[in-house]
Amino acid sequence: MATSTCFLCPSTASLKGRARFRIRIRCSSSVSVNIRREPEPVTTLVKAFAPATVANLGPGFDFLGCAVDGLGDIVSVKVDPQVHPGEICISDISGHAPNKLSKNPLWNCAGIAAIEVMKMLSIRSVGLSLSLEKGLPLGSGLGSSAASAAAAAVAVNELFGKKLSVEELVLASLKSEEKVSGYHADNVAPSIMGGFVLIGSYSPLELMPLKFPAEKELYFVLVTPEFEAPTKKMRAALPTEIGMPHHVWNCSQAGALVASVLQGDVVGLGKALSSDKIVEPRRAPLIPGMEAVKRAAIQAGAFGCTISGAGPTAVAVIDDEQTGHLIAKHMIDAFLHVGNLKASANVKQLDRLGARRIPN
Amino acid sequence: MATSTCFLCPSTASLKGRARFRIRIRCSSSVSVNIRREPEPVTTLVKAFAPATVANLGPGFDFLGCAVDGLGDIVSVKVDPQVHPGEICISDISGHAPNKLSKNPLWNCAGIAAIEVMKMLSIRSVGLSLSLEKGLPLGSGLGSSAASAAAAAVAVNELFGKKLSVEELVLASLKSEEKVSGYHADNVAPSIMGGFVLIGSYSPLELMPLKFPAEKELYFVLVTPEFEAPTKKMRAALPTEIGMPHHVWNCSQAGALVASVLQGDVVGLGKALSSDKIVEPRRAPLIPGMEAVKRAAIQAGAFGCTISGAGPTAVAVIDDEQTGHLIAKHMIDAFLHVGNLKASANVKQLDRLGARRIPN
Repeated sequence: MATSTCFLCPSTASLKGRARFRIRIRCSSSVSVNIRREPEPVTTLVKAFAPATVANLGPGFDFLGCAVDGLGDIVSVKVDPQVHPGEICISDISGHAPNKLSKNPLWNCAGIAAIEVMKMLSIRSVGLSLSLEKGLPLGSGLGSSAASAAAAAVAVNELFGKKLSVEELVLASLKSEEKVSGYHADNVAPSIMGGFVLIGSYSPLELMPLKFPAEKELYFVLVTPEFEAPTKKMRAALPTEIGMPHHVWNCSQAGALVASVLQGDVVGLGKALSSDKIVEPRRAPLIPGMEAVKRAAIQAGAFGCTISGAGPTAVAVIDDEQTGHLIAKHMIDAFLHVGNLKASANVKQLDRLGARRIPN
Repeated sequence: MATSTCFLCPSTASLKGRARFRIRIRCSSSVSVNIRREPEPVTTLVKAFAPATVANLGPGFDFLGCAVDGLGDIVSVKVDPQVHPGEICISDISGHAPNKLSKNPLWNCAGIAAIEVMKMLSIRSVGLSLSLEKGLPLGSGLGSSAASAAAAAVAVNELFGKKLSVEELVLASLKSEEKVSGYHADNVAPSIMGGFVLIGSYSPLELMPLKFPAEKELYFVLVTPEFEAPTKKMRAALPTEIGMPHHVWNCSQAGALVASVLQGDVVGLGKALSSDKIVEPRRAPLIPGMEAVKRAAIQAGAFGCTISGAGPTAVAVIDDEQTGHLIAKHMIDAFLHVGNLKASANVKQLDRLGARRIPN
């Protein structure tokens, strides 16, 4: 087992992480824990799953995301006497494109988040090894990096007795996102918390969980083409200035989207999701076939369709699974015939739990 | 009684009103009524009250408004054999600045809305006279014109047996707003429907009532200085282009505002209300003392404060009446000492009913 890529000397840990630790979280009454005594591991091995996420959600660009059940990454962490105390190493990466990911924990999403959690917990007596099962393809617009970070943060926290709050785990995972794809919590927050989460502000971090009613059905049709849509390029396509009419329109649709989520109105949610006049019109033309895919989804009965995250995955919403599969078929066909891209589909429900420990 | 300023020959009524009549309203399952037979009056006199409204609500600019209890306009309509059948006349205007308002129903907010309702109902055998009690000052930012229109629309509809839906009454009142202050439903919709209303779109008109939980307390502190802030001037102050960061910020706050309303979170509502980075920063400097008034409100305990409508009224929110009066005092002082303006205050609850018939 390689232990050469390990890191973290707690004595050099920046205080910045701790300072940012005293966050004001509106979604919870819990007060941040200031860890003074190093906790001991409560077990030797923890396995955690973190779900895929759909961020942006049309007019929810950059502040709203939700978690998707049954798709995600798995991280296992174990106490490893071969690893220098207070350090971590990545022992294994499997699943999607394992060779594209660094085993240096400082350059790996799961590694960075795990390091942050260890910092927050002041771990200096125990070394850990981490293995990552990539259930999500990279750069697909499904929050792949966020899921790795969320699973790692939760796994390390569970190993040491769950001392950190959900909000602190979001902050730890944000460190990872910051390095990999920008300081955005609209993937990591729903991946950790489950459901829909609105990012109210970053300074201080304010997370608003938006409860979709338990009795309502909501299916996401996620169609991922074989196409690379780098976040940087998709972000460069955005306008820097927005005309007032479009601004007011998107704001109203953001409000309608939030209201639809809280009221369990899937038709309204789909309509609002589809209504973005600012981001989607700039990004869709960069993904071959996307506009046709959206039309196909809606013609096949979807309540709405947009780009998931920065793409290339297209996400449509519907309230029953069978129609979801039919919509998926039409979307795959459109990617193939108009965009000349092969695509694969998943029809999944909302994940209401967020990142969690799973049996070893 | 003057009957010379009457109008409306049903034979020349534009079909446009009827065409726009088939609206898709998401807030109601009711289907628009296509009036074929002229209804008869069910009584000879109806008196209706319509509440004041706070539109814009910070990041809710141009699409979100709410109704305020205990402040508003009253319209009485009665069957008047002295008025030519199918026509209407304004017999009396009392209350705030009656001399500033036209008695020509084609140029009076109440008159225009009453005419529209008569058109929609195809009234051609009965003449009406209308009297208007202006409870709201003109141009105050409290939806004065909308309240007149809403009260008139409801009164005429009640007189003829309530054939029109709430949504049709909004459309009738919008005709009035269009002529007076622009085609915006964020005052008329809450004045007619009560509570908070989100305008999802205009074509087709989509109104989303946002239910503020019944068990929660919400007080508006409304402080109106003696100052004219013409809507046109306040609108001209707005930027035409908005930078992406401010756009995303305001969108997220619009979402947070909607979530706070639906969740009954008055602290969150105040915070979101106060957070506008686009409209308020441009308009506040045009109202002497407004920035100091906002600071004073928040220092005195308000959860948030912004400009009501296009101003000059400042609106703060709080969850108890006593603190509301204290906040009002501080806001009045700030208008006086910083803005050199006298001001008067009202501390009122949310109106949850909207425009309604009241005893004669």
